[in-house]
Amino acid sequence: MRAAQAAIWDVDGSGIGILEHSHRGAVFERVLARTEAAIRELAGIGDDFAVLFVTGGATPHFTMVAENFLAGGTADYCHTGVWSAKAIAAARRYGTVNVACSSEADNFASLPDAFRWSAAARYVHYTSNETIYGIQWPVPPRASAPLICDASSDIFSRPLPLDGHGLVYAGAQKNLGPSGISLVIARRALLDTAAADLPPLASYATYAAEHSMHNTPNTFGVWMIGAVVAWIREQGGLVAMADRNRRKAAALYEFLDASDAWRPHARPGSRSDMNVTFRGATVELEDKALALAEQRGMSGLRGHRSVGGLRASLYNAFPESGVARLVDLLRAVA
Amino acid sequence: MRAAQAAIWDVDGSGIGILEHSHRGAVFERVLARTEAAIRELAGIGDDFAVLFVTGGATPHFTMVAENFLAGGTADYCHTGVWSAKAIAAARRYGTVNVACSSEADNFASLPDAFRWSAAARYVHYTSNETIYGIQWPVPPRASAPLICDASSDIFSRPLPLDGHGLVYAGAQKNLGPSGISLVIARRALLDTAAADLPPLASYATYAAEHSMHNTPNTFGVWMIGAVVAWIREQGGLVAMADRNRRKAAALYEFLDASDAWRPHARPGSRSDMNVTFRGATVELEDKALALAEQRGMSGLRGHRSVGGLRASLYNAFPESGVARLVDLLRAVA
Repeated sequence: MRAAQAAIWDVDGSGIGILEHSHRGAVFERVLARTEAAIRELAGIGDDFAVLFVTGGATPHFTMVAENFLAGGTADYCHTGVWSAKAIAAARRYGTVNVACSSEADNFASLPDAFRWSAAARYVHYTSNETIYGIQWPVPPRASAPLICDASSDIFSRPLPLDGHGLVYAGAQKNLGPSGISLVIARRALLDTAAADLPPLASYATYAAEHSMHNTPNTFGVWMIGAVVAWIREQGGLVAMADRNRRKAAALYEFLDASDAWRPHARPGSRSDMNVTFRGATVELEDKALALAEQRGMSGLRGHRSVGGLRASLYNAFPESGVARLVDLLRAVA
Repeated sequence: MRAAQAAIWDVDGSGIGILEHSHRGAVFERVLARTEAAIRELAGIGDDFAVLFVTGGATPHFTMVAENFLAGGTADYCHTGVWSAKAIAAARRYGTVNVACSSEADNFASLPDAFRWSAAARYVHYTSNETIYGIQWPVPPRASAPLICDASSDIFSRPLPLDGHGLVYAGAQKNLGPSGISLVIARRALLDTAAADLPPLASYATYAAEHSMHNTPNTFGVWMIGAVVAWIREQGGLVAMADRNRRKAAALYEFLDASDAWRPHARPGSRSDMNVTFRGATVELEDKALALAEQRGMSGLRGHRSVGGLRASLYNAFPESGVARLVDLLRAVA
């Protein structure tokens, strides 16, 4: 945040701030180039993938993915909660959506364990982390069609597994930067198969061909993603982030599992390191914890209405000390 | 810029910055509500219009306008340069585009003076200011169909004439705020006529129904637009901005008209107060001026290749003293 303040006044010693520079000027061109290079280095992304900055969050990609790659054919979707439901609904306009696996019957407390892949699937879409139910794929689903992953809520929280993937998209606002921008990592060979004749901004190929500069990009967002990537690198990179995130989540799950007053929503093996969802033995206990949290300046702990209870979001920026404070609070009220 | 720095660290005394707040939290809800209210007050916008924040600049609206309102019918477009050409090309996918007026034969040195409106036109699209050729509609075109205006490069540089308008859109990055967000002012009665069954983010009605919160908006962009609107108000409002902008442009045009060495591209009556385009008597003179400008730390003066010469962009934030410095430079090299 201190670096962002400085860049708003004077970016790279240019004398004016990042918000004031033309996106066609040399200063922003350098910001864009170095941000892409830093992402490639951090995540080990080769030139067989394009790295794209798309204005908007994940929601536009629910539509864009299907416009580009479903295009009247069939695709497999993994249904793991609220976000996959939105992706599925958006895709149905553009072709046949096969829900190849679903954990809805388990109220999304676990990942799917039965799969019915379509022989004709053009791609397999999955949501790597489900923020509302608190489940996360420890490894990607195994399928023969190219994987397309909505990684909005766990990108760069751990190493990025690109094997088998055609495209990864992520709204920036959890682990990458500000809202209003998304990062897309797209296999160039997949882009070659995309529908032609789309409006330019609906086509991933436009972003690849014009280096995310077909129109004015979210220039501050690109700068901020670069700053966050530099910070992750200072923390030791993606393996170190994964270790830290695993420690944070494990400390909380251990406490919850050992407690009579609290129980996690998600089952072992499917649990998210990013969003820990849990219920109290009674609703009164949950309300007591939320009230004490407010007193102690700890916010955002109320669970989504579809799960109830509490939810602790432990994104990259959340410190280990915060987990200790939360455990202390949950112990105090029980 | 100083206010933006402060808000990145701690917005509204909340203890954390605007980039860190959830878009569903009370702090951002207040930012959104007061930004909308400030825009309505500044521009005199009544409740018959919705005020919307759309992630992305003007380019997505070239497509969205036609998706929502052309929808297989006919629309009239005013062709005044590079930006109207893009809007026309995008619209042709969605229906019949009638170029009702054009100043292409004059190399866009003037506004059109002959109009062939379609009886069936669902709307009339025009670009209130053309940045590259430097022409600006002093008053909107007169037509019976609802006007749809791309006001990206002159919004809030002068009072906003909403009479006769169905919708005004503007990418923020010239006069309103950062890139990656646009402001839309849409007559509710027009929204009621829009195509149904569009993807939610392609439908203006979604933004109106869900107060620009169907998905995560560009939260920093909304905050920044609010700060810029507050600044415009401190400057005296839109009439005062128009007076100042007129003085800046008039001072430059007066010098150019009186000079033997320089001549404006645009003709009187069509000249832009935002972008003053002009040629030197020789290309050598132009190069000499651009070289001296670089020495003096004055950037962004090279004209677009389609016009050549020089271009001075005098957006709201550009000070009157800057015009005096530019005139001094142009006099020095001639």
